[in-house]
Amino acid sequence: MIATTHTSSTPPSSDRLLVQEVAPRDGLQIEPSWVETDHKVALIDSLSTAGFSRIEAGSFVSPKAVPMLCDGEEVFARIHREPGCVYVALVPNLKGAERAIAAGADELNLVVSASEAHNAANMRMSCDASFTSFARIADVAADRRVAMNGTVATAFGCPFEGRVAAGRVLSFVERHLSLGATGITLADTTGMANPRQVRDLVRHVLRLVPASALTLHFHNTRGMGLANVLAAYDAGARRFDAALGGLGGCPFAPGATGNICTEDLVHMCLAMGIDTGVDLAWIITLSRTLPTLLGHEVPGQVAKAGCVWNLHQPPGCG
Amino acid sequence: MIATTHTSSTPPSSDRLLVQEVAPRDGLQIEPSWVETDHKVALIDSLSTAGFSRIEAGSFVSPKAVPMLCDGEEVFARIHREPGCVYVALVPNLKGAERAIAAGADELNLVVSASEAHNAANMRMSCDASFTSFARIADVAADRRVAMNGTVATAFGCPFEGRVAAGRVLSFVERHLSLGATGITLADTTGMANPRQVRDLVRHVLRLVPASALTLHFHNTRGMGLANVLAAYDAGARRFDAALGGLGGCPFAPGATGNICTEDLVHMCLAMGIDTGVDLAWIITLSRTLPTLLGHEVPGQVAKAGCVWNLHQPPGCG
Repeated sequence: MIATTHTSSTPPSSDRLLVQEVAPRDGLQIEPSWVETDHKVALIDSLSTAGFSRIEAGSFVSPKAVPMLCDGEEVFARIHREPGCVYVALVPNLKGAERAIAAGADELNLVVSASEAHNAANMRMSCDASFTSFARIADVAADRRVAMNGTVATAFGCPFEGRVAAGRVLSFVERHLSLGATGITLADTTGMANPRQVRDLVRHVLRLVPASALTLHFHNTRGMGLANVLAAYDAGARRFDAALGGLGGCPFAPGATGNICTEDLVHMCLAMGIDTGVDLAWIITLSRTLPTLLGHEVPGQVAKAGCVWNLHQPPGCG
Repeated sequence: MIATTHTSSTPPSSDRLLVQEVAPRDGLQIEPSWVETDHKVALIDSLSTAGFSRIEAGSFVSPKAVPMLCDGEEVFARIHREPGCVYVALVPNLKGAERAIAAGADELNLVVSASEAHNAANMRMSCDASFTSFARIADVAADRRVAMNGTVATAFGCPFEGRVAAGRVLSFVERHLSLGATGITLADTTGMANPRQVRDLVRHVLRLVPASALTLHFHNTRGMGLANVLAAYDAGARRFDAALGGLGGCPFAPGATGNICTEDLVHMCLAMGIDTGVDLAWIITLSRTLPTLLGHEVPGQVAKAGCVWNLHQPPGCG
């Protein structure tokens, strides 16, 4: 458990930026056409060889709620476990946590929305009820020595309620920590965050959580995704969720882009001289397989445009 | 002419961000299907009522080189001239400058690439030859009291040569200023800039040019467009080119996005509390007409996703 007496915002110890790949969970869950278990396993195994130290590999929610991810047990059983890579599972309740632990998840990701309306729509319970459920999960996780990450969804705004008070987000972070979460994620679930807001909230949260334990989860719904990463990084954040190809999306924004795109993020970092440990050429190759796998184009830009250091022949010379 | 003795980077006098709309020029020039003069005039007139103080309304280049913009004279003759709005024309040479002045352009935009290879491909001459040509234009412009803006293209990288030395960009800025340019644009012509590079170069250039006279021109080719705006703004820049819908593009990146998207930029600014003076609701409405006008989807996100303050009914309540 992280000491909540960590009262001043300390600079992160490294310039390195850590990417948690979430395409297998947040990326796939909104896809309209079934993706075979074989293909999910191959995708995760291809990702783990790219150098990610964390992959959100599935969720253990009701198959009725998210039919795409109903095969979580089989996926976890069949993937190759790359040494040093943490395989995370999203769990909504005690039953899901027990399934995820039995399946061999390294870490449970517990999600509560900062807004009551969104938690009611997403989890069908009040925020207090979510934390009551998390307390039961925490007992099991501690008993089984499985780590917990606490996510505050809609931390930068709710599509139903609008603005979310920073104080409420901070109190939810503290509640997650008090239950034993060793990591915290601030999630911009429907792409409402702006860079100024991100900078301010990250600075506040880094008084409660060290940079090594804080993840920012942005969507590019309104084009601000990488600008928000930049603002968060400048404020001291060092861990970011991203999805290969920019998969994912929001049911309230049809046609809009999804999660920030992994290869676009890694490319920006490399261009800026920030190390991520991820093999960019390999993930670009992987991303280019997504349109065939999913039957549609994906939003990521670098897989289409190439890297800034891939030069061209001038006209007349090629 | 701007004093080149402006030696220290002074903070900008305002938080306001000024957007120059470039869809009628940089946006349309790469479109594959002819856009009628009527539609160009209507687009520019619709834009000028949205509150832009500067619109790049056309170019006076060879009709063979850019057939789409061959009707510059007619466009300038027919648009409604909104008081207070500066209508800019891109000109490649003395002949183009004379045409633009005769057509009534308020300002001539003179473009030279920082890299020899790109200038050779784009302008079919050496960079020195471009400046020799600009000197002749400067005489005519001074005589006719028409303002000049000097653009340094490929200022953040060249698709043929790669990295461009900052010192060379600065020397080109000084050459533009010495010829009488009252504005300078640093153009990331093919979307190669990254935020760290932007911050550094903007700081350097703001020692030569006040923020009120410096424009940044970014493309979103690799997803970094708004992150680059944020970095430039934080470094003191206050003027940005953008194209409605994110129109434009780069011949070396088929499938990639074009200029940074005007409505996405204005939306981010509003969300951050930065005034632009542009009517966001109106430009979103305008952007939504582009797919019909051009026959294809456009990259802008906010026109698809809506603004962050446009809330939704929770499930079961609507």
